[in-house]
Amino acid sequence: MSHSVCVVGSVALDSIQTPTGSADDVLGGSCSYFSVAASFFAPVNMVGVIGSDFPEVERSFMESRGINLEGLEVVDGATFRWTGRYHENMNNRDTLDLQLNVFGEFDPKLPESYRDSDLVFLANIQPGLQTSVLSQLGSYKLVGADTMDHWITESRDDLIDLLKDVDILSINDSEAEQLSGESNVVIAARKILEMGPKSLLIKRGEYGALLFSANDVFAVPAYPLERVIDPTGAGDCFAGGLFGSLAESGEFTGKGLRRAIVHGSVVASFAVEDFGLGRLKTLTRDDIDQRYKAFMALTDFHS
Amino acid sequence: MSHSVCVVGSVALDSIQTPTGSADDVLGGSCSYFSVAASFFAPVNMVGVIGSDFPEVERSFMESRGINLEGLEVVDGATFRWTGRYHENMNNRDTLDLQLNVFGEFDPKLPESYRDSDLVFLANIQPGLQTSVLSQLGSYKLVGADTMDHWITESRDDLIDLLKDVDILSINDSEAEQLSGESNVVIAARKILEMGPKSLLIKRGEYGALLFSANDVFAVPAYPLERVIDPTGAGDCFAGGLFGSLAESGEFTGKGLRRAIVHGSVVASFAVEDFGLGRLKTLTRDDIDQRYKAFMALTDFHS
Repeated sequence: MSHSVCVVGSVALDSIQTPTGSADDVLGGSCSYFSVAASFFAPVNMVGVIGSDFPEVERSFMESRGINLEGLEVVDGATFRWTGRYHENMNNRDTLDLQLNVFGEFDPKLPESYRDSDLVFLANIQPGLQTSVLSQLGSYKLVGADTMDHWITESRDDLIDLLKDVDILSINDSEAEQLSGESNVVIAARKILEMGPKSLLIKRGEYGALLFSANDVFAVPAYPLERVIDPTGAGDCFAGGLFGSLAESGEFTGKGLRRAIVHGSVVASFAVEDFGLGRLKTLTRDDIDQRYKAFMALTDFHS
Repeated sequence: MSHSVCVVGSVALDSIQTPTGSADDVLGGSCSYFSVAASFFAPVNMVGVIGSDFPEVERSFMESRGINLEGLEVVDGATFRWTGRYHENMNNRDTLDLQLNVFGEFDPKLPESYRDSDLVFLANIQPGLQTSVLSQLGSYKLVGADTMDHWITESRDDLIDLLKDVDILSINDSEAEQLSGESNVVIAARKILEMGPKSLLIKRGEYGALLFSANDVFAVPAYPLERVIDPTGAGDCFAGGLFGSLAESGEFTGKGLRRAIVHGSVVASFAVEDFGLGRLKTLTRDDIDQRYKAFMALTDFHS
């Protein structure tokens, strides 16, 4: 039987502009992306906050993915809103507008029924809140966490505190450089592992990802894509696929962890093919398994 | 029995400054890097030009690697000299001084004994000269070529002409974008394949490499390195390891080509560990085989 994954993070309505198009008020936020991605592999218990304006159709979508929304608090007011515009190369973006709304007072509370979740993912929120979530759990087998540039500079002490309890830290390459103060990715990884996490996943966008542990390094390229429509949430979908796959297999180290990273990369590769969670609304497990096989063919020189 | 590789390109004396050190008048040039890298796998026939000032110790080194120097013309005057300085991140560099000297009049002439070389690599020189080399060969099994930004803009017609006869074009990602006019690497690759080459290797430095053919894509990460001392010549060493490996195995497609790409990546990963060809002067085939195995372990999730 599959383990369950509890995830805490933001639920938002995003308005996104890219060089080729735009989308308004689409489901976004780290918690949403993670949950939907993970739901293809294992039961997901979501913790987040939305306003009374949250569209019923998005709630129904998450329910249709089997995501447990008991921990999704509804507060009078407006849902977190983000508006951003991507540059021509899709690697950089500007935030045009940010309205925290009800998310500004987010104080995550885990329903009783979540406290036995075996895997916990602390998506990108203030590190002090991430730690408070861990303290509410009865027991857990595996803790994942993400963070961002803002917390690395503004809440560094809280973040360093949290890292002692993290099994897998999932960040991108610029965050790794910022957190470690090192531009070489191998040296940066070693310094970050010394801060506490047992493993460090460094996501490099279209260039793939690296996993560092005390005695092991795993490198995987990204699936080459002809059309990237919207990169928003790709990192959260990567983490969602990864932790979903770990929950499904129950193998948290070695080959199980490597296969889970490839699953994360595969789900992320689908996520960027449409705005927001558009592509994942029609995605099937069979699509994922097909691309996983294509990914094996893409990278195999071992046989 | 191993096939032989004929390579045509520049032989230079480089002066290199990096954020951590410098080296003066070290053996450089695309032909030198390629030849030394390939020599770990197969017999190499070198075609190039040097001045009367070329250090005997460098000639002896190349001879000690078993490289056939019959096609290395010596002309009265000074050897090609390049002086460059790398930026802090090691990805960008400025040319501080460039003296073509005897290389300015380079007109490659293949010795009779080279004309049966099975594999030919046309390293980065003017595309018209690359074509003239092909016309001097009696017959050949596999043609590789490299080029650079300067020729893509200044000798575009000659380059397009050459590409019709190329089996494997080996360029970096910015050159692929420049040649195709496309920033997406998959679309860029398709456009370049339409120009003639049967396969296209796109080198992405620390991010690895992609091989595109009509019906296949292969993606491989780079070996993560803690210390990059000098990136000069890494791309030429990649190509040298690749073509050397192809010559050794005689398998020019499929798994043989994929393994050759990993061999190229492995040799390049050693090359950047010291200035110029410093690391390759002490490198052994056993070192290469050990790192190839480490590379398999680094990337394996298939079993």
